[in-house]
Amino acid sequence: MLYLIGLGLGDAKDITVKGLEVVRRCSRVYLEAYTSVLTVGKEALEEFYGRKLILADREEVEQEADNILKDADISDVAFLVVGDPFGATTHSDLVLRATKLGIPYRVIHNASIMNAVGCCGLQLYKFGEIVSIVFWTDTWRPESFFDKVKKNRQNGMHTLCLLDIKVKEQSLENLIKGRKIYEPPRYMNVNQAAQQLLEIVQNQRKRGEEPAITEETLCVGLARVGAEDQKIAAGTLQQMCTVDLGEPLHSLIITGGSLHPLEMEMLSLFSIPENS
Amino acid sequence: MLYLIGLGLGDAKDITVKGLEVVRRCSRVYLEAYTSVLTVGKEALEEFYGRKLILADREEVEQEADNILKDADISDVAFLVVGDPFGATTHSDLVLRATKLGIPYRVIHNASIMNAVGCCGLQLYKFGEIVSIVFWTDTWRPESFFDKVKKNRQNGMHTLCLLDIKVKEQSLENLIKGRKIYEPPRYMNVNQAAQQLLEIVQNQRKRGEEPAITEETLCVGLARVGAEDQKIAAGTLQQMCTVDLGEPLHSLIITGGSLHPLEMEMLSLFSIPENS
Repeated sequence: MLYLIGLGLGDAKDITVKGLEVVRRCSRVYLEAYTSVLTVGKEALEEFYGRKLILADREEVEQEADNILKDADISDVAFLVVGDPFGATTHSDLVLRATKLGIPYRVIHNASIMNAVGCCGLQLYKFGEIVSIVFWTDTWRPESFFDKVKKNRQNGMHTLCLLDIKVKEQSLENLIKGRKIYEPPRYMNVNQAAQQLLEIVQNQRKRGEEPAITEETLCVGLARVGAEDQKIAAGTLQQMCTVDLGEPLHSLIITGGSLHPLEMEMLSLFSIPENS
Repeated sequence: MLYLIGLGLGDAKDITVKGLEVVRRCSRVYLEAYTSVLTVGKEALEEFYGRKLILADREEVEQEADNILKDADISDVAFLVVGDPFGATTHSDLVLRATKLGIPYRVIHNASIMNAVGCCGLQLYKFGEIVSIVFWTDTWRPESFFDKVKKNRQNGMHTLCLLDIKVKEQSLENLIKGRKIYEPPRYMNVNQAAQQLLEIVQNQRKRGEEPAITEETLCVGLARVGAEDQKIAAGTLQQMCTVDLGEPLHSLIITGGSLHPLEMEMLSLFSIPENS
């Protein structure tokens, strides 16, 4: 049996009791290591689970799925995913490959950022399409995701923005030379996301368009959701450029405009002081 | 401290390790008992947690929140919610009341139906606004939610339909006479939801409108997501009227039209045989 097990969002103890029991009895346990991170590292997980974990980066999952699935028809193999196995990144590929090999699979769900953001008080019902904001480079500054923000706003829906994670990326030079040397991991924070958004707003104004959001649009920044030291800050997009939410991971919500009074009241618990 | 703890979707062991530790040390443990159900009852939870649970129905949470929060400033109180505390129903009220009383709170997240539906292979990114489908009566047959389905379809987004749950409802007679006698709980199944949807489609045709979906629209029925005996069925809306998914809880997804090849391939794992 292949088990896809969500680890939740905080630390080692956010796994479910059911998930932990499975981890402890599987013959091999893989940890998906490219789309997200917990606030603790692999070692802390290994200590708490009492099991060695095999790191599986994107290359391995895509190219060596057969290794992961080896003998899973006669023994139990676990594949651990931060958040939920079908959250921000789906693991359909692995499931489909298992099915083709006649290997049964089970999913053990957990919280994902896509439902846990509800902790800020915005109603999950009222979220529209999710967008991803990627790190801009000098030559690649995509703005196309902004259309989705616009559509959500027009429909009165909030937009959850997932912020870029660069793990195991190679510099152009190392890539060309085929050297497997990787850059340190980078995680986009709320400030960077807000600054990129503001630049898009300014670009649209320059082109004579009316942007769907402005410096004054109400946003919510979230950091380390589910961890003990999680931080939530509600304020304008302008304020999001400077608010300090600390360590990764960060997410940003652009509100949909009209809020329910309960949403307003909840957000007021997290509002950034005027003169900060 | 007030702890809001998600129980996940399946059975007693879907609580997180962190959640279980908190439950075992709290002075009082409430179980929210009106918006959802696990596949096991209160007794199974009590046995596994080793704690007595106090059932809190909607009346109590709304009218007697102060009882729930009593002494939570000097001791720990847990409030257990099926799924995630900020999932389909948010518990903002309780959080706000706690905050006003100076009681700190923490959320221990878990899977909710809103992210766990990803197990069918449809990408969570591409879900639009969630709708609720309520039991129609002879005199109350609301169709307004259908506008949201239409808007989602126009934007190529899937629609998750949460299906009605009637728990602790009184008959009109008992309500008028003030008798606290409650009807047996009722849970809408996928067949009933699909039939109501088809009736709306037919009503729109009668009025000369072109409905946003038809008998042939691809839908996904899900039952007991996260439980060992979960069932998923992909087929037309017409097929959803007769497919047998067994016991509650059920949910229904109306797909957004164009699907990613991976979504199609995943759904094919669950497709209803042609001649059934």
